[in-house]
Amino acid sequence: MSAIRFELLARDGRARRGRLHLPRGTVETPAFMPVGTCATVKALTPAQLGELGAEIVLANTFHLWLRPGPDVIADHGGLHRFMGWTRPILTDSGGFQVFSLAKLRRITPEGVHFASPVDGARVFLSPEKAMEIQRVLDSDIAMVFDECTPYPASEAEAARSMRLSMDWAERSKRAFEGSPNALFGIVQGGVHLALRRESARILCAMGFDGYAVGGLAVGEPASERNAVLDATVPELPDDRPRYLMGVGRPVDILDAVERGIDLFDCVLPTRNARNGHFFTRSGVVRIRNARYLRDLRPIEEGCGCYTCRHFSRAYLSHLHRSGEILGAVLGTLHNVHHYLELMREIRAAIAEGRLGEYAAGRRGALNAPADELA
Amino acid sequence: MSAIRFELLARDGRARRGRLHLPRGTVETPAFMPVGTCATVKALTPAQLGELGAEIVLANTFHLWLRPGPDVIADHGGLHRFMGWTRPILTDSGGFQVFSLAKLRRITPEGVHFASPVDGARVFLSPEKAMEIQRVLDSDIAMVFDECTPYPASEAEAARSMRLSMDWAERSKRAFEGSPNALFGIVQGGVHLALRRESARILCAMGFDGYAVGGLAVGEPASERNAVLDATVPELPDDRPRYLMGVGRPVDILDAVERGIDLFDCVLPTRNARNGHFFTRSGVVRIRNARYLRDLRPIEEGCGCYTCRHFSRAYLSHLHRSGEILGAVLGTLHNVHHYLELMREIRAAIAEGRLGEYAAGRRGALNAPADELA
Repeated sequence: MSAIRFELLARDGRARRGRLHLPRGTVETPAFMPVGTCATVKALTPAQLGELGAEIVLANTFHLWLRPGPDVIADHGGLHRFMGWTRPILTDSGGFQVFSLAKLRRITPEGVHFASPVDGARVFLSPEKAMEIQRVLDSDIAMVFDECTPYPASEAEAARSMRLSMDWAERSKRAFEGSPNALFGIVQGGVHLALRRESARILCAMGFDGYAVGGLAVGEPASERNAVLDATVPELPDDRPRYLMGVGRPVDILDAVERGIDLFDCVLPTRNARNGHFFTRSGVVRIRNARYLRDLRPIEEGCGCYTCRHFSRAYLSHLHRSGEILGAVLGTLHNVHHYLELMREIRAAIAEGRLGEYAAGRRGALNAPADELA
Repeated sequence: MSAIRFELLARDGRARRGRLHLPRGTVETPAFMPVGTCATVKALTPAQLGELGAEIVLANTFHLWLRPGPDVIADHGGLHRFMGWTRPILTDSGGFQVFSLAKLRRITPEGVHFASPVDGARVFLSPEKAMEIQRVLDSDIAMVFDECTPYPASEAEAARSMRLSMDWAERSKRAFEGSPNALFGIVQGGVHLALRRESARILCAMGFDGYAVGGLAVGEPASERNAVLDATVPELPDDRPRYLMGVGRPVDILDAVERGIDLFDCVLPTRNARNGHFFTRSGVVRIRNARYLRDLRPIEEGCGCYTCRHFSRAYLSHLHRSGEILGAVLGTLHNVHHYLELMREIRAAIAEGRLGEYAAGRRGALNAPADELA
């Protein structure tokens, strides 16, 4: 029996409006998962996250394994009690971080040896280890341990990497047996469409609670990413949720929803907020720009978030120039609201059969220079 | 007509339980004012501050004058709209900061020339200028511009400094005439009791809406500070609020309440929170201490703050070791709650005529080593 039930409520082209039932709560899809790498969505309290309407957050097995370590989280009975978040959590398996953060990396069929970025200690991560940690975290959705194929990669490299990931997916599934939580497989294969189709078929034959598309948002152009989705999504079962890992800008999310993706995560809203980059429908407000020093308007006129209801760009400019923590907090509240509001609007548009029109309107409203597209 | 009405509700020895009526709200006294130096109580939203029960906050004329500058705040119609805080604000005049932060300082009878710590520009602050800025800030309570006498200072030095401050107090009062807001005088005189009495009498003859005791919390022992209060407070009118500037630890606040002080401010709860020093009734929890790595208890058992209701010391330890913003937020929520709860308990104890017993209990509960006394 699956720990997950995915209810399809409406369709609009390939896009789906769904509802993901998990033991700790329901997630309306398409959904965006704010990223809580180290067991905190940076700068926000769980109460603030709840008020923003977040229904699920992502946390990182890799980071939590290295600090504070699974024992500390086990003491709390799992990640939910540790971080004070009662709604669903999805944990990434650590595969991506091993390849983006770990130094002195050595990959074997068994797993990955590397130096901890926290203290330099020699550590080893494998499918079995990643599943063991995620059982301790007790996340509602766990991810298989995979190798993130570099971009660009030749077809031969991508094939070798994908096949290793498929072997690791099978070992992950075996190691996770008996868990009450859900486990998602991760499609790999770089930007090679035949490999992506093969990977999807291999995973579907194993059978997972949901399917992720991994190895994207690593520098490839949007057209290649969209081509991967066009090739991959049709191979995935209609009755399971689909998750595009690490993507992306609002326009990227629109692209992917239109191709049948249900779940997203990305550090952009939180990381950019701390850097003073705030999302609006017409582009990005870079709050350190001198033009905002005396700007009495909110970040975005008409935005319903706490920040826009109470504070001017001039005040946010002051906070960011003064290095005040509240600048990060208020910016994060706005950016996460922006993303969650985008998802609410996407869901309504799908339900009403007007996603194409909605997406065209959002894309058309972006009038900022290309490097500021939100 | 005074902008302020101070209602005396109860007495217990020299301690007073009062209520300060200001146009923007009522402040129950004895009260603690969280410090919002740069127009933000560091790490907290105004909503969180309101939920904590803060009825008044302090902001700094000096900092806001240099950044973002009075023009930006004037654009917002004052500091309240700028920082999104609707309840009363008290602004310090900048006197203390000129002496603690400014470099290349040159004092003349007219005012103080110094280099801005923000950009090094040559600037000049005087009683008239400090009042002009505070009018723009539109704080509910403004403070006169004064010289903060260094500690230690000889009687002659302290006398010269006090007389300059008294001259500046008179000029401040004149410059503030016609303002709808309240203005407090500041008693100076170092730790020289005769000078303190003389200063208090001079200010009372001028007539202010309230009276502050300044120039303390600058390194003097508690016994000297208490002696200054014992000498000064009896000189102040009974029907006006009394404010001890920059003090202090909870035990210092108890000492001063017992000597008739009504208002307090101090950076300790907010600054220490960011450094991982959390106040409890039995001492300070230094959260980076290894003993807390797996401690499942809240900062303080029985504490009703958001942090203690939801998070363990182990989680806070993790946040502080990881440099997470949420560590500062949750610590600040706890420490400010600790101070505001202390004041609520002090007010109840005065009203019920058991302040001595309450203060003895608080002092007796402190079992930490001397350097960790909270």
